[in-house]
Amino acid sequence: MTEVATARRSRLTPEREAELYEAVLDLLREVGYDALTMDAVAARTRSSKATLYRQWGGKAQLVVRALRHGKPHHLDEIDTGSLRGDLHAMALTEDDCSIEQNAALMRGIAMAIHSNPDLREAFREQLIEPEMAEFRKIFQRAIDRGEIREDCPALKFMLHMMVGGFATTTLMDDKPPTQSFLVSYIDAVVLPALGLRTTED
Amino acid sequence: MTEVATARRSRLTPEREAELYEAVLDLLREVGYDALTMDAVAARTRSSKATLYRQWGGKAQLVVRALRHGKPHHLDEIDTGSLRGDLHAMALTEDDCSIEQNAALMRGIAMAIHSNPDLREAFREQLIEPEMAEFRKIFQRAIDRGEIREDCPALKFMLHMMVGGFATTTLMDDKPPTQSFLVSYIDAVVLPALGLRTTED
Repeated sequence: MTEVATARRSRLTPEREAELYEAVLDLLREVGYDALTMDAVAARTRSSKATLYRQWGGKAQLVVRALRHGKPHHLDEIDTGSLRGDLHAMALTEDDCSIEQNAALMRGIAMAIHSNPDLREAFREQLIEPEMAEFRKIFQRAIDRGEIREDCPALKFMLHMMVGGFATTTLMDDKPPTQSFLVSYIDAVVLPALGLRTTED
Repeated sequence: MTEVATARRSRLTPEREAELYEAVLDLLREVGYDALTMDAVAARTRSSKATLYRQWGGKAQLVVRALRHGKPHHLDEIDTGSLRGDLHAMALTEDDCSIEQNAALMRGIAMAIHSNPDLREAFREQLIEPEMAEFRKIFQRAIDRGEIREDCPALKFMLHMMVGGFATTTLMDDKPPTQSFLVSYIDAVVLPALGLRTTED
């Protein structure tokens, strides 16, 4: 599968690929997932539908790849020497404006996931799982440094804790969290749940 | 406002009111919030639209009152003598089948909230705030018993933590959390974030 994907993707230059993803994200913002068609992507990007299907396999895969492309932070570049530093760095990679843009996209996708099992599957495989793998490296380093215990029960709920921090504000106030909210949430909830206290504590 | 609401509502017997709310919840399950009309509620319940508007003011208010009526747990009845006991009791008031039914309704509402500010407002005022007020009493007792500190930073993120536990499973697996998942989440995340350790810890 990886080989096939590489072979497929090698037919486009990285610039052309980026251009396609940007067009998909624009369309997503304009019409949402359900109303987005491969015809519209083809028209917007002056490519053939056959090319799109050959390259990505389908709408769900194309949209998720575009979302992945649009994510500004790269967890694999974060290594500050402490868990608190790493988690804060994560919260600070996106400025408030970018958080807002991405939250709008993500809300649309979260709604579409319910009625599109193929989107949920692609979202999990292409976005959540790679992100969680990077996330686990951050926690493994914290375990290796002795900051948190390997058998800490909260470790298996990291995704739930983080989604709670992001999604609740978005849902209740119809606006995404700010950087400073995320930093407070990490200090007040995530680190204590992991048994690691902040210096102010 | 409370007096007016009481005066309004007193025109219906509690049985008739319950019947109306059940019909609204059935309609919500069948067609979702956006497609639910006051005409359909009036037809289903053999009442006049004028009565519905006089009693509840509008669709958002009627739907939120129905959701509130449909919530099986009453936090004000919970007082087990420990915070862990109270939070577990909360998680256990709904059996897995009821959690599933309510999660489906809540997901629909969560989606509708984005495009319906009046629904978001009613949802916050009639459901979240009363629930949070009861929630705060549970935490106040824990503070009074010395189980948690009054200035514990996690206290202001209770809603976020709980939503994270509920919504992430619903979103990622398209199925709501089970009772046993909720109990694990409370023990692994909520109590440690509050600085209260479980006995197994």
